[in-house]
Amino acid sequence: MANFQDIMMSAAINILSAFGFLVAFGLLRLQPFNDRVYFPKWYLKGMRGSPTSSGATVRKFVNLDAKTYFKFLNWMPAALRMPEPELIDHAGLDSAAYIRIYVLGLKIFVPITALALGVLVPVNYMSNTLERSREVVFSDIDKLSISNIPSGSPKFFAHLVMSYVFTFWTCFVLYHEYKTVAAKRLQFLASEKRRPDQFTVLVRNVPPDPDESVSEHIEHFFCVNHPGHYLTHQVVYNANKLAQVVDKKKSTKNWLVYYQNKFERNPKTKPTTKTGFLGLWGDRVNAIDYYNDTIKKLVEEMHNNVDFMQEKQEREKVISDPDAIMPAAFVSFKTRWGAAVCAQTQQSSNPTIWLTEWAPEPRDIYWNNLAIPYVELNVRKLLMGVAFFFLTFFFMIPIAFVQSLANIEGIQKALPFLKPLLQISSVKSVVQGFLPGIALKIFLAILPMILMLMSKIEGLTSLSHLDRRSAAKYHLFILINVFLGSIVTGTALQQLEKLMNEPSTEFTKTVGRSIPMKGTFFITYVMVDGWSGIAAEILRLVPLILFHLKNTFLVKTEQDREQATDPGSLNFATNEPRTQLYFLLGLVYSVVTPILLPFILIFFAFAYVVYRHQIINVYDQKYESGAAFWPQVHLRVIIGLIIAQVLLMGLFSTLGVAKSTFILIPQPILTIWFHRVCKGRFESAFLKFPLQEAMVKDTVERATEPNLNLLNYLKDAYVHPVFKGGQMQNHEVDVDEEESSPLVVTKRTSQMGSKHESDAGPEIRS
Amino acid sequence: MANFQDIMMSAAINILSAFGFLVAFGLLRLQPFNDRVYFPKWYLKGMRGSPTSSGATVRKFVNLDAKTYFKFLNWMPAALRMPEPELIDHAGLDSAAYIRIYVLGLKIFVPITALALGVLVPVNYMSNTLERSREVVFSDIDKLSISNIPSGSPKFFAHLVMSYVFTFWTCFVLYHEYKTVAAKRLQFLASEKRRPDQFTVLVRNVPPDPDESVSEHIEHFFCVNHPGHYLTHQVVYNANKLAQVVDKKKSTKNWLVYYQNKFERNPKTKPTTKTGFLGLWGDRVNAIDYYNDTIKKLVEEMHNNVDFMQEKQEREKVISDPDAIMPAAFVSFKTRWGAAVCAQTQQSSNPTIWLTEWAPEPRDIYWNNLAIPYVELNVRKLLMGVAFFFLTFFFMIPIAFVQSLANIEGIQKALPFLKPLLQISSVKSVVQGFLPGIALKIFLAILPMILMLMSKIEGLTSLSHLDRRSAAKYHLFILINVFLGSIVTGTALQQLEKLMNEPSTEFTKTVGRSIPMKGTFFITYVMVDGWSGIAAEILRLVPLILFHLKNTFLVKTEQDREQATDPGSLNFATNEPRTQLYFLLGLVYSVVTPILLPFILIFFAFAYVVYRHQIINVYDQKYESGAAFWPQVHLRVIIGLIIAQVLLMGLFSTLGVAKSTFILIPQPILTIWFHRVCKGRFESAFLKFPLQEAMVKDTVERATEPNLNLLNYLKDAYVHPVFKGGQMQNHEVDVDEEESSPLVVTKRTSQMGSKHESDAGPEIRS
Repeated sequence: MANFQDIMMSAAINILSAFGFLVAFGLLRLQPFNDRVYFPKWYLKGMRGSPTSSGATVRKFVNLDAKTYFKFLNWMPAALRMPEPELIDHAGLDSAAYIRIYVLGLKIFVPITALALGVLVPVNYMSNTLERSREVVFSDIDKLSISNIPSGSPKFFAHLVMSYVFTFWTCFVLYHEYKTVAAKRLQFLASEKRRPDQFTVLVRNVPPDPDESVSEHIEHFFCVNHPGHYLTHQVVYNANKLAQVVDKKKSTKNWLVYYQNKFERNPKTKPTTKTGFLGLWGDRVNAIDYYNDTIKKLVEEMHNNVDFMQEKQEREKVISDPDAIMPAAFVSFKTRWGAAVCAQTQQSSNPTIWLTEWAPEPRDIYWNNLAIPYVELNVRKLLMGVAFFFLTFFFMIPIAFVQSLANIEGIQKALPFLKPLLQISSVKSVVQGFLPGIALKIFLAILPMILMLMSKIEGLTSLSHLDRRSAAKYHLFILINVFLGSIVTGTALQQLEKLMNEPSTEFTKTVGRSIPMKGTFFITYVMVDGWSGIAAEILRLVPLILFHLKNTFLVKTEQDREQATDPGSLNFATNEPRTQLYFLLGLVYSVVTPILLPFILIFFAFAYVVYRHQIINVYDQKYESGAAFWPQVHLRVIIGLIIAQVLLMGLFSTLGVAKSTFILIPQPILTIWFHRVCKGRFESAFLKFPLQEAMVKDTVERATEPNLNLLNYLKDAYVHPVFKGGQMQNHEVDVDEEESSPLVVTKRTSQMGSKHESDAGPEIRS
Repeated sequence: MANFQDIMMSAAINILSAFGFLVAFGLLRLQPFNDRVYFPKWYLKGMRGSPTSSGATVRKFVNLDAKTYFKFLNWMPAALRMPEPELIDHAGLDSAAYIRIYVLGLKIFVPITALALGVLVPVNYMSNTLERSREVVFSDIDKLSISNIPSGSPKFFAHLVMSYVFTFWTCFVLYHEYKTVAAKRLQFLASEKRRPDQFTVLVRNVPPDPDESVSEHIEHFFCVNHPGHYLTHQVVYNANKLAQVVDKKKSTKNWLVYYQNKFERNPKTKPTTKTGFLGLWGDRVNAIDYYNDTIKKLVEEMHNNVDFMQEKQEREKVISDPDAIMPAAFVSFKTRWGAAVCAQTQQSSNPTIWLTEWAPEPRDIYWNNLAIPYVELNVRKLLMGVAFFFLTFFFMIPIAFVQSLANIEGIQKALPFLKPLLQISSVKSVVQGFLPGIALKIFLAILPMILMLMSKIEGLTSLSHLDRRSAAKYHLFILINVFLGSIVTGTALQQLEKLMNEPSTEFTKTVGRSIPMKGTFFITYVMVDGWSGIAAEILRLVPLILFHLKNTFLVKTEQDREQATDPGSLNFATNEPRTQLYFLLGLVYSVVTPILLPFILIFFAFAYVVYRHQIINVYDQKYESGAAFWPQVHLRVIIGLIIAQVLLMGLFSTLGVAKSTFILIPQPILTIWFHRVCKGRFESAFLKFPLQEAMVKDTVERATEPNLNLLNYLKDAYVHPVFKGGQMQNHEVDVDEEESSPLVVTKRTSQMGSKHESDAGPEIRS
């Protein structure tokens, strides 16, 4: 257990490192050559020109204006200055609502911190159990915690009352935030410009018909069942093969540009490459010629593919071809009312066919999953559920296995040429200290990607939904392995065993009892992971390095430079569950060790400023879901609240005031009830589009634009981006031109890993 | 523990008593004066005349045809003869689907019994652990059970495999039954005649509007948001006061008729009564005059009330009056499509106002609950949830208290005049043996009524829904207090304590271990509760006695006799959960003590025949929900299956083959998954009306009846029955005439206890 000095020391170190990151950021962001890394949002908006295009040569790269350096922290007030409506306009509701998660944290914890420090800390401090019981090692922090109160003391009454007060306040804030976000979402949807997804419904599991093609079948079905409302539809083509080719061409082109640049700089030696995998083996050839040839071949293949698809499309009018046409379509309606009706109703008596749901906006679609049959979808969900269970509880087994292999001897055997290096004792000790942790570190780093992959296998159809699902999985993982894993020492598997073989009350007691002891650990955790993590986020070290690498080796034109910029995005799937851990810690420790709360407050305040800055200046969201994630955020805070309440019950039953535990029983019941009320009251705003709103928008539009040609507007909105790109430039062979065309989009949309690139929607923005 | 002889003896007694009931039924049903008790359904259908109206006087009352007595069991083949489509036509889909519950039982358990008796019983019998271990008392039954196999024997493999086979077979049958019932429901809905509920949506929580009345507000809202579809609406009037008056009048009239009959038989003495409560005290007056006066007063009050309502209705057009108009309405549409759209979509951005759902059919509506605000509804649900928890786990406390009071001494004190009687030793011993049980017996008898009352407080809006909710509660109660309570001796409260303070695996083990020991107990239970219970059901002793009492004292005209007939109904809320207990027992014991299975098979077969007979000849359902309860039946069998699987795991872990328990873990997971697949596949058929079906029906109707005046058809369909009755006979004062008018309906509809009367819908049938 750390004492107060240790904590202060740790705080100092972390504050210093965070401060270091901030200083580095303050300096780097002023350099014009980093401008595209720190202000990409403004470039994308076309509101900031490239600094390299004008002015003196040196000034293009280095900021020589000394005065600006003194104000290296002035991005903070700037970040706070933009009012919320403007922020929604600038970055979308998703981003603005994401910021509100930190506001929620502040709103919940500022009053709780004040109360806890004002009431509970004095109560705790004035008892002196810990000083009297000499046999227990205790820290200064513990003197301020509930551990300092003697067993069975009536002072615990203060904690009971505070627990209810904190629960009430948290629910109060949650209710009002839910209400506000729901209102903002409805307002956002109502004030939005005309968008294709307002009129469109995604129809999946179209049943096969022996006499009609998929397209005809869809048209007839909706003409009959939505007469007067149906407008048009777009079947989904299976463009996965084409997307692969486009993908390959993109990477080949990067290599070509790389060698061309190399050749330009050093025209004497012709650059060569090997034809094999990654250029590591195979025949040595002229690199430029080789890549030029490859690209030509790929372009040909691509066009063949596109021709093939078009041919299919022609043929499709006669008979449906299962290879090319997926049994899914985007059906558009004449009015928003018609689309709202179709999305919310059941079409056929068999609820596994003609499934309708709101179409995600075009750039939000995850095309690969649009045509999964009902039973397969269920099997996938089952398998992923089982896989996630094993991932959560058994992930330590393979890691321990890798760790047992990855020792000095193993490396010496596998890579004998490293042997001399490894025998230097200092290197040896570093490797020995470093190796055991590295497998775990790597696993934790790629965990979000694994979870995203699992969500994709589950068959979700939109990127926003994928993000939300991955976030839910990550949240569970953190809850079990980070939170419970830190409190009860041992792997999740061991905990599971304990939970099975101990009385359920015993488990709560064990966890509850260890909570006060882990207070100092979590204070350090908040500083290391929270404070420094946020400070690192604003520095954007990885994009900074990548940008300069690309800039050096690949960039030739201004357009290329635009390509090289990676503005990044919020990455909800990773950031939100991590933030939820701080909510959980705050709620759990609010009664037990209130001294933890200020650290969490600082985290929320700091994160608020940093993310606000990033959203304004950096991130470019790859989709806009209209804050569809808020019900999940709400739910997870509720889960945290219930965990805190249950653990407090466990703790109280060990404090000699077991009877008072009964006073705490209504708390979780009321909290669950509160959640249900909120769900019924607000959730539908995030799931359904009310007919009244649809009718209002329709009426307004009919009055203002009576001659609108909606059919024309919707015609190409939901064509698979690859196919659309292919069609558009079917007869152009200008390779450079393609770079900025939607073809590029394709590759990214179809790739969409955990690190999404974000310029995926030029066809929407234009 | 009972041995084989005991079981055979018990079986013999139960078979004899069941046989006795059947003989009694066979004799009584042949007597013409009981005709209305045993064949009321045919009277209601108008297909059977009163036997008293023609023929010789003696023959009117007693059947003298000796031949018929020899065929006293020939109702059984007659009950089985009616084919299912005809049965649906005759009694409705609810009844036909209810019968299928027993068919489901037979389909599941016939093959399982065959397999279990053919494979597991020989395996069990050929081991002889129990004979060798002399210290344990064992019965012959136990020799056939899993207890007979030595600990750690490889023979348990047979039980493991059989457990999977039984699970697979149960799921297979469940899937196909769900599919069949869903198809039948859709076919039923599709083939149905035009009914008001097909066009009508129940709208609740209409928000108040300062400028418009409720009626105007509704009309404007739906004209705007469902243009071209909205037809008309009927606001809900608050007729609770009127219903009370009508209620009182009905009972007063019964007394009047009673005294009139008395006077007619004995014209010398004028019957007198006292004016106080139940005629027990107050001034002695002439009974006929007194009741005539009272009725006149009540009729006046009723008419005042009706006038008042009409006045309100007039005024309502100007401004809405919260006392008279409830913020709910039945909104009708021009097409089924329009109604289907409105019922399935969200109307307003606030999901707690303008709530739409399919209107129940008029006689299915529970009028009292139509206007409960959102928050109140949630508070009620919370309170009822807590109340149900206490009812389930703490019901023994008040009963034990009553039992402690209700002893011989207590009675002697309270009712001193019984003292001499109680001092006779034989009476004393009977009372002493009888009293302690009586409080529990009474509680169990009124439990379904308590649960129905709780469901009503929860605020459900239709009788069918109330029945389903009460059934769910009763099922839980039986599960915890009858099933678990019999296996683990002790009250539910003690079990709950154990569950909290023991490891969760330990609890399963405890229960699992006691299962084989309780086999003989449950065999007896099946015979006493199942066999004899069903045989008693067909005898209809209570309606038989009530009918003859009413017939003697109240009946004057043929119409009165019709009134006195109580055909009863299926009473889903009580019968279905009881049946589910047999599913559970069958599934739990299929692997453990297979010898229980034949007893359960006999129950299902017997119940099938009896209920089929009752449905054809007796019951008159008070509503038709189109088998809306099937998803619940399915769910509960699944719950039984999972309980059986978990308990088997508990049992196996105590049998020295703990490792093989892991083989059983996937079973409940796969079962839950199977349930989810079924739910997704079929449940919506019970919740939503697909647009395609609606459109087909609309199109057919438009073609066949182009001149239909739908407005006229729907005008009075959803008027509160009391109010409608009142209006109809506003200026008639003929008291007798009212008896057959819908006014009578009122009282019953508004009363609807657990014992529903069933002629609640003349205005629908006509």
